Amino acid sequence: MMRINNYSLLTDFYELTMTAGYFEHKLNTQAVFDLFIRRSPKNRSYFVACGLEDCLEYLKELHFDLESLDYLKNLKIFKDDFLNFLGNLKFRGSIFALPEGTIFFPNEPVIKVVAPIIEAQIIESFLLNSINLQTTIATKASRVVYAAKGKGVFDFSLRRTQGVSAAIKVARASYIAGCLGTSNCLAGKIYQIPVAGTMAHSYVMSFKEELKAFQSFTKTFPNNSTLLIDTYDNLKGLRNAITVAKELEAKGHRLLAVRLDSGDLASISQKVRVQLNKAGLSYVKIFASGNLDEYKIERLLKRKARIDNFGVGTNMGTSSDAPYCDVIYKISEVSDENGNFIPTMKLSKDKLTFPGRKQIFRIMDKKGQFEKDILALENESIEGTPLLIKVVENGKFIYKSPSLNEIRKVTKENLDCLPKKFKRINNAQKYPVLISPGLKALRDDFLNSLKQRMKNAP
Amino acid sequence: MMRINNYSLLTDFYELTMTAGYFEHKLNTQAVFDLFIRRSPKNRSYFVACGLEDCLEYLKELHFDLESLDYLKNLKIFKDDFLNFLGNLKFRGSIFALPEGTIFFPNEPVIKVVAPIIEAQIIESFLLNSINLQTTIATKASRVVYAAKGKGVFDFSLRRTQGVSAAIKVARASYIAGCLGTSNCLAGKIYQIPVAGTMAHSYVMSFKEELKAFQSFTKTFPNNSTLLIDTYDNLKGLRNAITVAKELEAKGHRLLAVRLDSGDLASISQKVRVQLNKAGLSYVKIFASGNLDEYKIERLLKRKARIDNFGVGTNMGTSSDAPYCDVIYKISEVSDENGNFIPTMKLSKDKLTFPGRKQIFRIMDKKGQFEKDILALENESIEGTPLLIKVVENGKFIYKSPSLNEIRKVTKENLDCLPKKFKRINNAQKYPVLISPGLKALRDDFLNSLKQRMKNAP
Repeated sequence: MMRINNYSLLTDFYELTMTAGYFEHKLNTQAVFDLFIRRSPKNRSYFVACGLEDCLEYLKELHFDLESLDYLKNLKIFKDDFLNFLGNLKFRGSIFALPEGTIFFPNEPVIKVVAPIIEAQIIESFLLNSINLQTTIATKASRVVYAAKGKGVFDFSLRRTQGVSAAIKVARASYIAGCLGTSNCLAGKIYQIPVAGTMAHSYVMSFKEELKAFQSFTKTFPNNSTLLIDTYDNLKGLRNAITVAKELEAKGHRLLAVRLDSGDLASISQKVRVQLNKAGLSYVKIFASGNLDEYKIERLLKRKARIDNFGVGTNMGTSSDAPYCDVIYKISEVSDENGNFIPTMKLSKDKLTFPGRKQIFRIMDKKGQFEKDILALENESIEGTPLLIKVVENGKFIYKSPSLNEIRKVTKENLDCLPKKFKRINNAQKYPVLISPGLKALRDDFLNSLKQRMKNAP
Repeated sequence: MMRINNYSLLTDFYELTMTAGYFEHKLNTQAVFDLFIRRSPKNRSYFVACGLEDCLEYLKELHFDLESLDYLKNLKIFKDDFLNFLGNLKFRGSIFALPEGTIFFPNEPVIKVVAPIIEAQIIESFLLNSINLQTTIATKASRVVYAAKGKGVFDFSLRRTQGVSAAIKVARASYIAGCLGTSNCLAGKIYQIPVAGTMAHSYVMSFKEELKAFQSFTKTFPNNSTLLIDTYDNLKGLRNAITVAKELEAKGHRLLAVRLDSGDLASISQKVRVQLNKAGLSYVKIFASGNLDEYKIERLLKRKARIDNFGVGTNMGTSSDAPYCDVIYKISEVSDENGNFIPTMKLSKDKLTFPGRKQIFRIMDKKGQFEKDILALENESIEGTPLLIKVVENGKFIYKSPSLNEIRKVTKENLDCLPKKFKRINNAQKYPVLISPGLKALRDDFLNSLKQRMKNAP
């Protein structure tokens, strides 16, 4: 199996060619970059910041080992002195970031990098990749959890995530967003996330009779069994499950749950609940799965489905209705020959950015709910709570990553402070992010002086 | 950074609980499983098989190491004799598969597993994950390449793929599907895929003047430079690029290309082509990027865009319009107490499967083009070419994985044999997959006998 020991080459080729250009022409140039999301995908009005921990681990470890340098040398495009330079490269810059679990909005930096331009450039691809995946999934999962209105949600996406690292990061991000656990054992091991599961149709089908399958499974797991009842027919399956539940009771055990995986889950769950209660099995929970997402869960609960726990797979694990965020990494300041930082911005059509070093200030209402944000220059004096915190200072990693459960708690606190109108599954309102006077002025100044320069250009 | 040394736990928790059930009640049971795609996503009529190589490496390495067993023990749900058994587990079954690059259709097995049921069950999650990702991406990329009508396509998706392993597997799968290279250096190193890249806006913006940025870059790479001309204004950028191209010419070098990344690429590319040709730079290529996919590329070329190469990122790298395949893994035979294999199938509503051991037979027309497939039982005598080949026999890995370039060639041959009506970007026709008389009869028999059994059940 593929094993990655060194991540330095996990970068776009152009980062390295640009870096070679900087090396020859701008070795001592410093720059500031903002990593942010340009626009919201459809049906999203907020994002849950996620993926910082991996960024910091990557930055801590960043170095080009001999094997990587050898590969680059064999491309026969880079000069030896540049490769020698790369061999000694470490990240010596500073990073400001939103703690994982922070709610944020389009145009607000998730990460701000202040570093030698070479280092800031090389790390672009990894930082974008990590923040994109985990923020996409944490945001999606927070919607699923919200739609479930307090019922449990479990990540069952391993089989359909986009690859192995996605499988593990999806388990992490969805747990952070409020899921109760994952089916992915490796993620459970790596992150100490609770693991959960039921049984598959193949188990039932490997026995001649469903009842025998149920009996054998509960014999092995007398206190932990969830029986899948739809392999042949939900209500007949339920009868077998009730038989087995009664047998368990007689031995002092309890059936945990039955699982529904097909058909009209709202009406089936109601029938199943009635039957279970009639049989004196009100403690047996109903678990549902089958192409679920926040839209379907919301509809099911509106139709009074009697479901206690949802197993959500593919649609959450790939964020299938919005499988990426429009996350970008743009230069906002660059030092001149005297070492002074000069604000800069991109002008490409429909792709304007904001220049300068920014901070996000969050304003709460009287009840402590998020009211609006102000995107400002970092040295502006603005009311509200500043959200970006320093996590790396000149190559020194001064931030202790919180535990997964701490991040999960921060996420819940953030989501609880976000008014409902911004969390609606459909037609969520747009959250107000205002641009500060200072930032507006800087942008206008830059645009005017640039127009002047362009006019005077030959 | 997360490093995975052992993949045995990359499985759904229920695979292990079911396995514990099998261990106690069906230790010697053998089973046959089919891995296949149930339905086509919108706008897909075929799939490019991809991901087998990783499946085989995973199966070859599969063993539960002490650390994994320790994790499972600490869950306090599995018994010691089962964990001891897991510690000695290896894959001893047989695998039949479509070689990577084979075109296939819904309901056709990509992989068929014949193995002790315990082993067949544990490997489910990984096999699905690997085939799902790489088949999804190879299929998507083949559409992008088809839309590009012979123009070059490069994978630029690293920053927005769903995680690290996706980044690398996307580079692999898209290269297999006909892309010319990738921006992902690590994928380039691992798979010897050509790496390619241009420059970013940040490079241009780090210089006071665009012209200086271009001059510095081409000084470092006098023969390999692609200049991004849209940072401030495409046509002004082009003027600077032409200046630099002329300077290069004077020194005996040649500018490779200019890159467009925003605005109306069709009309801008036409203007850029005219200007370049007027300046005697007809050899300078035009490279375009910016949220491209097969739909946009098709429209651009219909509008006579003068683009030589496309850099395609997020939409290809996440297959954003269909970010997963409806890939499933279903039991089709199971051995009884005498060791005889008995066909079985799933009956859940809308989720019927086919029982028995299958083979796919492909029928060509007189020109060697794919005409139709017949999904049959493996021992039926059917006209046509059988597509599933044996790659593992009772734990022996008898298949030598072809090189990446060989797989790429097979893919091209397959795509060339697929008539255009099935390859259309929109409204592709459905390819005929017929069910053989034998398979049909087996299914009907099974359904009838099952109905009988259910009727007689208490």
